[in-house]
Amino acid sequence: MTINYKNVYVGDVYTIAGIYEASGPLYKYFDELYDKDFYYGEKSFEKAEIKMHTSCIEGILRKSNLSCTEIDLMLAGDLHNQLTSSNYMSKVFGIPFLGVYNACATSAEAMLIAANFIDSKKVSNCLISTSSHNLASEKQFRNPVEYGTPKPDYATFTSTGAAAMILSSKKSNIRLESATVGRVIDKGIKDVNNMGAVMMPAAADTIYNHLKDMKRDVNYYDLILTGDLGKYGKEMLKKYMKSVYNIDLSKNYNDCGTMLYDINNQPVFAGGSGPVCSALVMFSYILNEMKKKKIKRVLFVPTGALYSPVMFLQHQSLPAIAHAISLEVLE
Amino acid sequence: MTINYKNVYVGDVYTIAGIYEASGPLYKYFDELYDKDFYYGEKSFEKAEIKMHTSCIEGILRKSNLSCTEIDLMLAGDLHNQLTSSNYMSKVFGIPFLGVYNACATSAEAMLIAANFIDSKKVSNCLISTSSHNLASEKQFRNPVEYGTPKPDYATFTSTGAAAMILSSKKSNIRLESATVGRVIDKGIKDVNNMGAVMMPAAADTIYNHLKDMKRDVNYYDLILTGDLGKYGKEMLKKYMKSVYNIDLSKNYNDCGTMLYDINNQPVFAGGSGPVCSALVMFSYILNEMKKKKIKRVLFVPTGALYSPVMFLQHQSLPAIAHAISLEVLE
Repeated sequence: MTINYKNVYVGDVYTIAGIYEASGPLYKYFDELYDKDFYYGEKSFEKAEIKMHTSCIEGILRKSNLSCTEIDLMLAGDLHNQLTSSNYMSKVFGIPFLGVYNACATSAEAMLIAANFIDSKKVSNCLISTSSHNLASEKQFRNPVEYGTPKPDYATFTSTGAAAMILSSKKSNIRLESATVGRVIDKGIKDVNNMGAVMMPAAADTIYNHLKDMKRDVNYYDLILTGDLGKYGKEMLKKYMKSVYNIDLSKNYNDCGTMLYDINNQPVFAGGSGPVCSALVMFSYILNEMKKKKIKRVLFVPTGALYSPVMFLQHQSLPAIAHAISLEVLE
Repeated sequence: MTINYKNVYVGDVYTIAGIYEASGPLYKYFDELYDKDFYYGEKSFEKAEIKMHTSCIEGILRKSNLSCTEIDLMLAGDLHNQLTSSNYMSKVFGIPFLGVYNACATSAEAMLIAANFIDSKKVSNCLISTSSHNLASEKQFRNPVEYGTPKPDYATFTSTGAAAMILSSKKSNIRLESATVGRVIDKGIKDVNNMGAVMMPAAADTIYNHLKDMKRDVNYYDLILTGDLGKYGKEMLKKYMKSVYNIDLSKNYNDCGTMLYDINNQPVFAGGSGPVCSALVMFSYILNEMKKKKIKRVLFVPTGALYSPVMFLQHQSLPAIAHAISLEVLE
């Protein structure tokens, strides 16, 4: 289901990156680096993530010179049970709040809901944000683990950081012009380490539906950018799109999970994941390239595994979703 | 932050109630009763809730004579970590999906986001739903518990059931005319049993802001209906509204948590809670009264404790939120 927006523009963005992200190739594009340790002066990983998320919102308000009362609506989500990071961040600011959860596709979900509020003139701006923290996620999703068990090479690595964006009716050089809401897809995969394979069919379904709904050729976009399929998931998507839909992604496709790190030299397995992974890449490096007009049309497709440890322990397969956001540089 | 809607109407609703809800005073208003046990033929509480949620969507599609492809957008959320009930329900239907989470205020969040998509003419209808399951919640939020520990009288009881509503641009006799998005409020309470006290200030803030934004007297509404404050929280809200805002709730106020059960005779402590509690009361009994024109203007104010067991164990206080939805009968 694809929606067109007429008057939604990308305003300021703010990004905070953790240790591994700060030592990756995109470090110079982030606003802040939390690169000392995983605690940031707090006593738990959860509190560290809340601190990072809160600092990110303080950062974007400072950068955009806006007070809390000048933000109409805040949408946020994260990987924690009960969206802990977003809720505890949100209570600091007192901005009307909506919590959203589509796992690692949360940033796209927030963007498209916010775009709708703005385009309908119900509000003039929205602040959207997300965060994730490698060790908070490991603790929640992969604890207890068998002592000494190695991860497979196709596992992904939850990224650490926070990212925020202001969407607004106020004109800027980058427009959010359309969005495709994804469907929950489950191909029966039960391997929680193989998130690339779990999420790839959802990305394929959404990209296909977006191009069909908008009557666009795949090469309309300078870049199609999935969220966190990782190096194997990325190759699977290319093959799947070609064989199932006859869509050739060989020229203009990349995956944020493979871009955030030097995946051949950093210990991140197949690449990054977590809701902040795609947001860190899109909101910093890619928007920067768009502002310089090096790339003009981007289809941003964060992917989320709607994975639940409880259902995994009950031997259920893993559903996934992907939403697509089309951003374009105005001449 | 209050939003006005012009063309959003309440379509069909469908409700499924569990054992305790089926033996409460509103039993005759529900579409289905799952009143045998807490498993419904499944092997876990989580699977039982997914079954109930899925049956609820099948029920509303059957009742409204709509196929999945005739629903533009689905919004759902529940109390499970990672919104398990909603995700596993959603994968059955293949309808474009957005997962939302504001704890027990989730139904209102879904309604106001859906209303915005419809009012802006981006879609013509949305299916919103929520569910909760007493024992799935007890397992997730209150496990491990000390053996034999009694709950205090002011504790609330997570309701079991599923509820769904179609919102549409197609005219009906009940209109969703405005909504106020709440802010996250934290008054420093750390008692996880005292959800009424935790959520009451959020309800007060949202009701006050709604009346102020809409320039309405409290008696404009035939009924102001909070979600799940319970019998003590309800009394606290009345006193708080009177003392802080000089707003008198003595004539037209009630709380779904106290209406879903015979709270003096059923073992539900101070009353119901969980996202389905308010949805079960509003979507069945209250809408029925509205259809009969016994009450014409209702302000529905579900309240959510954005409580996280992990943050509770780290000695953090409990944030809360409430959203207000104004529904009116058309003459």
